Amino acid sequence: MGELTPVLEAYTLLSIAIILLAAKCSGLVERFGQPSVLGELIMGVILGNLIFLGVRFFDPIKENIIIQFLADLGVIVLLFQVGLESNLGSMARVGGRALLVAVVGVVLPFVLGAYIVGPLLMPGMGSNSYIFLGATLTATSVGITARVFRDLGRLNSRESQIVLGAAVIDDILGLIILAVVSAIVSLGSVSIGDVASISAKAVLFLFAVVTFGQMLAPDIGNLLSKIQTGTGMKFTLAITFCLLFAYFAEQIGLAPIVGAFAAGLVLDPVHFRHFDNPRVINDIKETVKSEDPKLVERIDEVLDYHAHRHIDDLIEPLSFFLVPIFFIKTGMDVDLSTLLDIKVVLIAIAVATIALAGKVAAGYVAGDVNKAIVGWGMVPRGEVGLIFAAMGRSLGVVPDRLFSVIVIVIIFSTLITPLVLSYLLKRQIAQEKPQAVVQL
Amino acid sequence: MGELTPVLEAYTLLSIAIILLAAKCSGLVERFGQPSVLGELIMGVILGNLIFLGVRFFDPIKENIIIQFLADLGVIVLLFQVGLESNLGSMARVGGRALLVAVVGVVLPFVLGAYIVGPLLMPGMGSNSYIFLGATLTATSVGITARVFRDLGRLNSRESQIVLGAAVIDDILGLIILAVVSAIVSLGSVSIGDVASISAKAVLFLFAVVTFGQMLAPDIGNLLSKIQTGTGMKFTLAITFCLLFAYFAEQIGLAPIVGAFAAGLVLDPVHFRHFDNPRVINDIKETVKSEDPKLVERIDEVLDYHAHRHIDDLIEPLSFFLVPIFFIKTGMDVDLSTLLDIKVVLIAIAVATIALAGKVAAGYVAGDVNKAIVGWGMVPRGEVGLIFAAMGRSLGVVPDRLFSVIVIVIIFSTLITPLVLSYLLKRQIAQEKPQAVVQL
Repeated sequence: MGELTPVLEAYTLLSIAIILLAAKCSGLVERFGQPSVLGELIMGVILGNLIFLGVRFFDPIKENIIIQFLADLGVIVLLFQVGLESNLGSMARVGGRALLVAVVGVVLPFVLGAYIVGPLLMPGMGSNSYIFLGATLTATSVGITARVFRDLGRLNSRESQIVLGAAVIDDILGLIILAVVSAIVSLGSVSIGDVASISAKAVLFLFAVVTFGQMLAPDIGNLLSKIQTGTGMKFTLAITFCLLFAYFAEQIGLAPIVGAFAAGLVLDPVHFRHFDNPRVINDIKETVKSEDPKLVERIDEVLDYHAHRHIDDLIEPLSFFLVPIFFIKTGMDVDLSTLLDIKVVLIAIAVATIALAGKVAAGYVAGDVNKAIVGWGMVPRGEVGLIFAAMGRSLGVVPDRLFSVIVIVIIFSTLITPLVLSYLLKRQIAQEKPQAVVQL
Repeated sequence: MGELTPVLEAYTLLSIAIILLAAKCSGLVERFGQPSVLGELIMGVILGNLIFLGVRFFDPIKENIIIQFLADLGVIVLLFQVGLESNLGSMARVGGRALLVAVVGVVLPFVLGAYIVGPLLMPGMGSNSYIFLGATLTATSVGITARVFRDLGRLNSRESQIVLGAAVIDDILGLIILAVVSAIVSLGSVSIGDVASISAKAVLFLFAVVTFGQMLAPDIGNLLSKIQTGTGMKFTLAITFCLLFAYFAEQIGLAPIVGAFAAGLVLDPVHFRHFDNPRVINDIKETVKSEDPKLVERIDEVLDYHAHRHIDDLIEPLSFFLVPIFFIKTGMDVDLSTLLDIKVVLIAIAVATIALAGKVAAGYVAGDVNKAIVGWGMVPRGEVGLIFAAMGRSLGVVPDRLFSVIVIVIIFSTLITPLVLSYLLKRQIAQEKPQAVVQL
């Protein structure tokens, strides 16, 4: 797997520094009311396509396996944070709606892509190609949506919970579809048993981690707190949990981010309370000890509030470091040269339209919430779609032109979502304002 | 440079989780009064040599380029933290002593290795081989020493400052020696001009970063604070500074950790004060606003103290994540099978003795401090020695047996230092106790 030479290492250090600075500079879009994730994506697109201006400096970053890993670790940490900030109870309350949204959002784009738009716009390909096109349009890439909800402080809204739940279910459905279409293409047929086994594994995984995880997390915390005296225990426990769950998810064929999200859901800050003893809290408690009891009580409340939040605060610096790498890298992987073939672009626009319409329509079964927000939240496609497409290419059923179309659709869904979603969210926030909503 | 397959990515995630958990478990050595770095190193040696028991599970970790990078990034972050916690003023006050310690600690092992022990114990090799042996014994690897000082809360002692300063100078001297011996071996001669140019570059780098860095850091901070509204700015600025300096150091041929240390020295928490506005501080100031003014003042002091420390606290989680990877990996790279050839081991013990004696003797020019602590602080050899040895091997002047000797010497110096140094430091702390030292 290559060798880490001092030159490569130094270049990688420089790349990370540039990416982090570029990400911070792109935060300027916040001045124009846009979520910073949009700025990072656009900055990434610019850096990744400077080759058109003859600047080749950033090209090696795209091929750098270490940057790629840090980016992937970034989206894992992001989904872990989102899981930490999500509430399992309120996720469960929207579970039925999320399932409905997920199923409609998978079936509609698949049917539209595989049986209508594909054969209509790109006639002459085999039916397997159309099936693969349909499959690539199914899986939502929840990283961008989660980031927009987070940037605007709306992670705990009902819309957000439905989208997050639907995206997880979505991933499981996508996994089943992928297994089925791969089997059809390579074997010519597929047994009901295989489909059932994959489905069962995936569903069991989620049930198992959430059920046992919630049962065991306090005990694990207690156990480890006994053998450890130094600081850093809480951080290490949390991040190890996240990494192990991401690994297990990958092992049964789910995306690692699904595991990380589940890990975050399972870990409740409360399980970590006995590790909480930061110097600041002790020092202040020491200071106010002998004073007015009412004041002491009020300060205790403030401190306890912050003690509870401490696990997120510990993860946050890691997220500052890794998450921008993911979004800048995602932007960099957008190859603008695919836009040079006008025919491909026109087909891609048509496909993107159904990809988008299918998910937005799914939002309409979301019940008594802002349906447009749910629908648009499901729009982004990402690495899962690309993995499908790459697999289809290696099986010989996705020709280059179809692959370009898929790439453009993914680009489009990636860039348009933060724009539309932040507009919808801000309109919703503005409508709520008169009722004096308490911001947490 | 290879490809990041989902399987490799999942395995890497699992490896990191295992390393972090193993590191935390090895923290048990603290119960026996040992610094946790020793536990991590030993745990690494165990994991890396389980192959003797037929367990091959951990072998791929050693070859994993991503783990290697994270380990290297870990020691960079560690030296950055050490730099942040060090004080440029007190470093400068011990500058003369540090220079003396560094020169003696480089000259003694070099002369002993190249002209006495080498020819005596391993006769029949060319003189270039002996010169390379001498060169590999010169450079101190300060990571382990810094970690021991840090684990025991002694980073701000005079001994610590001298060791850190000497290690930086050491690295520069080692760089010059390497350039000279490489030129002698490959060209048969070396010009005074080359030596002068390398020396000048290295010295200039340090002067430049420290001088200009201290001048510019506040302005850079001011500038960037104007274009950025969100959190994370302080963290990003600090870590970018660290990475850029590490990159620049590598570019002029110094170890990246020297650059990271310089970056930490330059960055003073005070330059970041205007970014400091964590919620906890605001909330508490809000709470105590209208109460007893004397209490408010005292709480303000406590809060300001923590505000100042905030930059270290932000870096700390990153260090929790990366630094154990470095020490576990360092332990894993120890190949116990080199100990199977008894003749090699005996020679290695002799070489290790002079390697150790040379540095401990250097401690005796350290002036009015605990000389043994300074000397032992300089003992660890590490990646720089290995780089020298590997370069010599590729030039054909370091045969396999000599390479094994060098590896054993490095292992020995790595494992014995935390043991001896923590004993010496704890004895010193015990002696100071009667005078009621204030711990920061």
